[in-house]
Amino acid sequence: MRYPDAISKLINKLSELPSVGPKTAERYVFHLLKQSQEGLEDLASSIKELKEKTIICQDCRTIADASPCRICNDSNREKAVLCLVENTQDLGAIEATNQFKGRYFVLGGLISTIKEISPESLGFRRLLKKIETDKVEELIIALNFNLEGETTALYLKKLLKDKIKISRLAKGLPAGSDLEYADELTLASALKNRNELG
Amino acid sequence: MRYPDAISKLINKLSELPSVGPKTAERYVFHLLKQSQEGLEDLASSIKELKEKTIICQDCRTIADASPCRICNDSNREKAVLCLVENTQDLGAIEATNQFKGRYFVLGGLISTIKEISPESLGFRRLLKKIETDKVEELIIALNFNLEGETTALYLKKLLKDKIKISRLAKGLPAGSDLEYADELTLASALKNRNELG
Repeated sequence: MRYPDAISKLINKLSELPSVGPKTAERYVFHLLKQSQEGLEDLASSIKELKEKTIICQDCRTIADASPCRICNDSNREKAVLCLVENTQDLGAIEATNQFKGRYFVLGGLISTIKEISPESLGFRRLLKKIETDKVEELIIALNFNLEGETTALYLKKLLKDKIKISRLAKGLPAGSDLEYADELTLASALKNRNELG
Repeated sequence: MRYPDAISKLINKLSELPSVGPKTAERYVFHLLKQSQEGLEDLASSIKELKEKTIICQDCRTIADASPCRICNDSNREKAVLCLVENTQDLGAIEATNQFKGRYFVLGGLISTIKEISPESLGFRRLLKKIETDKVEELIIALNFNLEGETTALYLKKLLKDKIKISRLAKGLPAGSDLEYADELTLASALKNRNELG
């Protein structure tokens, strides 16, 4: 079907969003067509300002309102415990637990032979510098539990061994999970890391 | 998690899209953050121009580049066969089959007691006028196969009975469907409307 150019153009652009196909993009566009012109202009300016109004925190490398960011600027947060995450979203996920009172460092990626991401292209040098400057005593590795996350954790272990304490997020059954449907790797980790009932 | 305002604001706005929750909106926003500023401004202007560069065709009521639209302006398309659809997307779906050479009328909604949409609020008066002006001989009702579509079709049947020929899209098994999983209503329709093998 040949929709008006303005519609086709926006369908194409929205199809570039992750997991959005042309059919979903079409639904979005026809939803937007029902909005007021004011509403559309508001959305448009939010998109335009997305990068203009955000900045990379020069301390922890997260995407923030200001540099240093709210967390790096908060003197109540322990400098001695540093949590290493891949990106700002992962940082957001940990913050949402309200359980962590230390600081963060955003690595910006994971070591991957397939995607040809070498340690040199990631923020390890900055990380080492931050560990030294902030006198970090424990580094919590909060990376994805997959091949790339494991490779990166292993690399860090070699890099920092005997220098500081390194810990990792526990691997095991997720909340609300059904043991019957847990995969072997998860179940093996849950078994290996079992806790004593206390 | 308190993301920067520019991010939270856009997450909220994108969460208003159909079937998009905060988590999906978050993915969209972090995808957009990786785009160039030029790309974002391009997307923003496409959204802004969506309604500015489209118009409702005064003849068939579809959303189009111009009024009359491409189809209403095409003298090769039969005026005597009119296809009634609910909206521009449904028109697009029928156009995509490349099987229909008549004209369209977009009703703009379906009669619904639950949503309190009465026949008076829909485009029936315009439809009747168009049927008269264009000397329509057959009206093809191409509305959703659900309660609202059926109610609207029934209303039209009463309104136009004995005036012109009225037909409806066939009801039956969709392409590629597995008989075992077809619902009873579909199967009952497919059985009732069975065709002789010729």
